[in-house]
Amino acid sequence: MTNTVHLADRVGKLGVETAFLVAAKAAAHAARGNRVYPFHLGDMNLPTPGNIIEAAYLAMREGKNGYTPNAGIPQLREALATEFNTTRKTSYSLDNVAVQPGGKPVISKFLLALMNPGDEVLYPNPGFPIYESQIRFHGGVAVPYPILPGEKNFSFDLDAMEAAITDRTRLLIVNDLHNPTSAECSAEDRRKIAEIAVRHNLQVLLDEAYFDVRYEGESVSLIQEKGMVERSVILHTFSKKYAMTGWRVGAALGPKEIIDVIAKLNVNDESCTSHSNQYAACEALQGDQAGAREILSTLRKRRDLTVELLNDIEGVKCYSPGATFYLYPDVTEAMAKAGYSDYQPFLDAVLANTGVSICARTHFGTAHPGEERKYLRFAYSGIDARDIEAGLGKLKVFLEK
Amino acid sequence: MTNTVHLADRVGKLGVETAFLVAAKAAAHAARGNRVYPFHLGDMNLPTPGNIIEAAYLAMREGKNGYTPNAGIPQLREALATEFNTTRKTSYSLDNVAVQPGGKPVISKFLLALMNPGDEVLYPNPGFPIYESQIRFHGGVAVPYPILPGEKNFSFDLDAMEAAITDRTRLLIVNDLHNPTSAECSAEDRRKIAEIAVRHNLQVLLDEAYFDVRYEGESVSLIQEKGMVERSVILHTFSKKYAMTGWRVGAALGPKEIIDVIAKLNVNDESCTSHSNQYAACEALQGDQAGAREILSTLRKRRDLTVELLNDIEGVKCYSPGATFYLYPDVTEAMAKAGYSDYQPFLDAVLANTGVSICARTHFGTAHPGEERKYLRFAYSGIDARDIEAGLGKLKVFLEK
Repeated sequence: MTNTVHLADRVGKLGVETAFLVAAKAAAHAARGNRVYPFHLGDMNLPTPGNIIEAAYLAMREGKNGYTPNAGIPQLREALATEFNTTRKTSYSLDNVAVQPGGKPVISKFLLALMNPGDEVLYPNPGFPIYESQIRFHGGVAVPYPILPGEKNFSFDLDAMEAAITDRTRLLIVNDLHNPTSAECSAEDRRKIAEIAVRHNLQVLLDEAYFDVRYEGESVSLIQEKGMVERSVILHTFSKKYAMTGWRVGAALGPKEIIDVIAKLNVNDESCTSHSNQYAACEALQGDQAGAREILSTLRKRRDLTVELLNDIEGVKCYSPGATFYLYPDVTEAMAKAGYSDYQPFLDAVLANTGVSICARTHFGTAHPGEERKYLRFAYSGIDARDIEAGLGKLKVFLEK
Repeated sequence: MTNTVHLADRVGKLGVETAFLVAAKAAAHAARGNRVYPFHLGDMNLPTPGNIIEAAYLAMREGKNGYTPNAGIPQLREALATEFNTTRKTSYSLDNVAVQPGGKPVISKFLLALMNPGDEVLYPNPGFPIYESQIRFHGGVAVPYPILPGEKNFSFDLDAMEAAITDRTRLLIVNDLHNPTSAECSAEDRRKIAEIAVRHNLQVLLDEAYFDVRYEGESVSLIQEKGMVERSVILHTFSKKYAMTGWRVGAALGPKEIIDVIAKLNVNDESCTSHSNQYAACEALQGDQAGAREILSTLRKRRDLTVELLNDIEGVKCYSPGATFYLYPDVTEAMAKAGYSDYQPFLDAVLANTGVSICARTHFGTAHPGEERKYLRFAYSGIDARDIEAGLGKLKVFLEK
């Protein structure tokens, strides 16, 4: 039977979201009767606000069960344009919006619409692993730029970003409010990135999945910088702000010329996003925001608790970032003290001894030459305060013994 | 602004589902205050059965709002394996099933998993236009095989299919119960197709979107033929049987080695299919089938009425196929009598004069050399009996005047 299946060559370049592999190990550990403290996956254990659920139910009962236009229902596209014009000072209309089954599909559609085989694409490393996977799968050359530790948070290494540009560089992916590090751009960073993009005529994917997961201050989009609106596609998702990860509703926003191609990809790939879920997304944007506020408030408390408890562990140093629901502590000394130099045996020992399930630097790309510090990623979106306390208590005992 | 956007070369190869363009013209006609009789789009104007809606609502309220496993919830994968083992005599387990956001995504994922650039792929012409679009978009060579009129229905031209095979042919797409012609395989056709696939070691996409839309007799899957299960991926959808087009739930079923790659594509493309909609699909498969029976009964009445009224028009000849919800009448004489030799002016005149909105042969591929007869496609899934009567009455007057 084996010789009847012949996989395409490109399949060898396909990566996975390695956090799902960590999840599988955690599930196996739990299946053996052990308690697991799930810090590994950016899923959420908070309920979707009830008004959003009711809006979906109403839409279904009202017969919103057929295909929608490929780019989404006009109401949702208009509501998104209005939302962005308010929060990002853009001048979008519904022509600049293509609804997607989640934020993630924007990554492949951006690349399929704009990248030729052999084009070089800059992407953050560490970073969301799907960037590198999709660039390579569709024939591009994935060129990483680093994220560096700073005084109070991580930041983008813009000198390295520009130094990596060659005459074959066409696209730039920026994930301001960054997974896994929570890095964010300063006003000067935003200006510099826009200058780089304009100077080298790069087309840009702005992954703003965490734009609204902000505890202090205000998120400012790179789209507001000079020259960006005409060259950028924004990845937007309803997953995080409204605890709707499993609903699979997001959108691509950008120049009409690109959005038209992305809508054409919708025709070819999935026809449209789930009809009633699009009505739910309208309610999320335009209805009562009490649910979203409560979600954010819960996440803020979890962040404070997790940061405090991590910093209370000997050999662990963790910033308190103002956005996202990820922490990326430096655990170099703690790992050394525990006698580990490689991540996987360390993660396995932590899981086996404490039930704490976490991702490591290696799940977000290959270490840069000369990279010496060790990092873990803790997501606190899917774990209650009580379990954060219990899990990190056990981790402290394990690491300090 | 225009020179900042540089579309990828492959975008030029991207087609669309041209029925959506017909829909746009119909909408514009309706917006000018005219009555439209929508025979153009394979959408449905029948309600999704209430038990399926309630199952989705229950799942949402029970907190089924987070990510699911990339290949789908185990319950749905198992239910689908059981369904196929019953209806197609396969021996699938959940490892052979990857849930998708609709049936359509199986087309691109089949090609991305198995087609190398330059590979030749056989596909039906006339046929669902996304096959050709996706083959070309992802670098393959699209090689059509014809569908021919027969005594009582259309059928696949298997001699032409085999004659089109070269040493670069790797993949074969078969849409038994065919859109737009309603062609279906005889038992001998199925045997011959399997022999061709085995003889030339082709990997096969079996698009079975209309397997359950059958009014007489019983659908039999090509998967049951010798040598097919190890080389075939089945495209399955919940859209038609349960009037769930807008829910976007379908599945790919096939050898584990291929399904694993397709699940990896799920990770990269959309993470998973809408969580609550997967529970709705479980209810569709395992719950009360009264709704599905009623949908089928309504479609059967519409088919009988549409076939009768089409054949009552001078110069129109239409089979009465036992499955799908499409009719593909030969209108060669009627078009000639009305003074048209090209489709587009004819369709425009029909819409302007009668409000009847239809697709033509040209929406399903390029005519074969020597192809002389003229065909239209009437979909009766989205139009009530009363409107079928009114619309075809006007069409008769227009064509016979």
